[in-house]
Amino acid sequence: MDTKFNNTNTRIVLREYVPPGINTTTCFSVDKSQQVPSPDSLTDGQVLVKVFALSIDPHLRIYLLAPEDQDPVVPQSSHPLGEAFASIGVGIVTASKSSKFAVGDRIRSVTLPWQDYAVMDATNLIKLPADETIPLQDYLGVLGMPSFTAYLGVVTAGKAKAGETLLVSAASGAVGQMVVQLAKARGLRVIGIAGSEEKTARVKSIGADQVINYKTCGDYEQAIKAAAPGGIDVYFDAVGGSILDAAFLNLNAGARVVLCGSMTTFGADRSKITGIKNLDTLIVKEATVQGIFWYPHLGTQVETDFFEEATRLVKQGKVDFKVDERTGLESAPQALVDPYEGKNFGKITVLL
Amino acid sequence: MDTKFNNTNTRIVLREYVPPGINTTTCFSVDKSQQVPSPDSLTDGQVLVKVFALSIDPHLRIYLLAPEDQDPVVPQSSHPLGEAFASIGVGIVTASKSSKFAVGDRIRSVTLPWQDYAVMDATNLIKLPADETIPLQDYLGVLGMPSFTAYLGVVTAGKAKAGETLLVSAASGAVGQMVVQLAKARGLRVIGIAGSEEKTARVKSIGADQVINYKTCGDYEQAIKAAAPGGIDVYFDAVGGSILDAAFLNLNAGARVVLCGSMTTFGADRSKITGIKNLDTLIVKEATVQGIFWYPHLGTQVETDFFEEATRLVKQGKVDFKVDERTGLESAPQALVDPYEGKNFGKITVLL
Repeated sequence: MDTKFNNTNTRIVLREYVPPGINTTTCFSVDKSQQVPSPDSLTDGQVLVKVFALSIDPHLRIYLLAPEDQDPVVPQSSHPLGEAFASIGVGIVTASKSSKFAVGDRIRSVTLPWQDYAVMDATNLIKLPADETIPLQDYLGVLGMPSFTAYLGVVTAGKAKAGETLLVSAASGAVGQMVVQLAKARGLRVIGIAGSEEKTARVKSIGADQVINYKTCGDYEQAIKAAAPGGIDVYFDAVGGSILDAAFLNLNAGARVVLCGSMTTFGADRSKITGIKNLDTLIVKEATVQGIFWYPHLGTQVETDFFEEATRLVKQGKVDFKVDERTGLESAPQALVDPYEGKNFGKITVLL
Repeated sequence: MDTKFNNTNTRIVLREYVPPGINTTTCFSVDKSQQVPSPDSLTDGQVLVKVFALSIDPHLRIYLLAPEDQDPVVPQSSHPLGEAFASIGVGIVTASKSSKFAVGDRIRSVTLPWQDYAVMDATNLIKLPADETIPLQDYLGVLGMPSFTAYLGVVTAGKAKAGETLLVSAASGAVGQMVVQLAKARGLRVIGIAGSEEKTARVKSIGADQVINYKTCGDYEQAIKAAAPGGIDVYFDAVGGSILDAAFLNLNAGARVVLCGSMTTFGADRSKITGIKNLDTLIVKEATVQGIFWYPHLGTQVETDFFEEATRLVKQGKVDFKVDERTGLESAPQALVDPYEGKNFGKITVLL
């Protein structure tokens, strides 16, 4: 048996930047030239982490853009070339020179390298509960960023109230599925938007009152109007573009539009973006648009509230959270491209 | 002397609708076929009003569009053809069959017809204070809609705080000049945008820390960045379009964008609108965009607060409110077109 092979620390390296508007996996290379770091190589404050699972999210494509193509959404965010790419991930501590972490601790990081093992500064890790009844990868999904984003959108920014009507795009996606369920649990009428018969059926099955298939519905404005003749009070947007523009035309007075992402513009060629034409409809309706981003809320009371509610729902089996689980580190690049081609179904996670 | 001539009730009638994107006065005709209504013609609840002054505001062009060109900003708002056009105005009661109004009362209406005298339902009139030290036309400007809109934008929606930086477009206009002064009075750093040397000088003279001339500044994003290297906390937008898009690129985390109007899209040909491309920059900054509209706030505590503050400032001589005063009912159509060609300077009012 070749022990050298078993000791290989496989890495997915970003070898070149991707021009705006392109979906590709060729920017990545699989590197097997390094070995798993020795515990002896750790310096004070460092821990060695066995990477267990990676979260693959649409906003990652922003980091694939070259510095000169920097996106105004997240300026100066190009990932360094020649290094392992990184995303939110969970892992297990296998060696520690930090007083804060012991071998066996379960951790989450927002910048976990795409490799088998990673030397991490303890300051970049969050210790997760030791409760082994909760699978570690749940902290990437139903107890992680997508679910927290849904909570921020429905509760904090959306101020969703019983009896109101909520519209959500990408409703079968990582965030959307939680938006549907959190809103239904709060007594709203929920209309989901998804892009296939399979996805619309799924959105219906988790409680949406009506579902629009955007690939077959024809004119978006009319489709939304037909599904919500009384108008929209909360619109949770994950796509931007023409669906967002159509939603603007269906808002009620005082409506809240929540932006959590924009698949039509993230990493796109901005010179080719069609642009939003109906923003001025906000004026007479005194409606609002609010961007939400989970990161600044980490460690706040809002996160504590979310975490308690989500953990309770999970333990009670009251949440149906669909994960699109891929296996093997080398499946990560394709998993990043798929949502831009509508080829994912639920929250994408790569298990190593 | 021809007494019939003196008794003519001149009216400015909308004779045809205007296609989107066109600036014209030919849609109006001057009608002198009617006589001033007799007090005897009033029915219960009606009053006869001598129209004293009319407010000419950019949003009026929406009412010039045909029903089939209805603008999503204010759907179903086409003004009836063959009738006198209408806008916010002030007048004096000359005859009354309403218990709420007496001859000599000063009134304001949001739909006062463009004619010398008008029979009005008392329910459509607001009685103004009898304080003769305040000129009646002030209730269209410094104590009226433009000033109230500025207050809503700076105080209610903008939540402007001392030490923050506020950017305002159309800063020499009806609303903008009050935004500058209310924000400066609250201790903000204020950057105005205007379209001529004369206007930028004016904006500077009322207290703005810096002024951008959008006709000569070159790239908007860079011009705003140069004027506000620390970023924008509140942007008060009255124009939409590429200036709004550039402002989005300069927002700080938690910034508030207030939309009070959109001269680039009101009554425009929507198929030709360029569209807003940078709305997704709100996400990571968790910034908000909020439409404001004065009408729903009439009669609320917010209006009372505004009115008290504005009246006090006016009586103390602390507000410099520039009015672009036109004379004669027949000057109203041109006054409606001028702001779309940058040809007004201050709040446009027509004195009859």
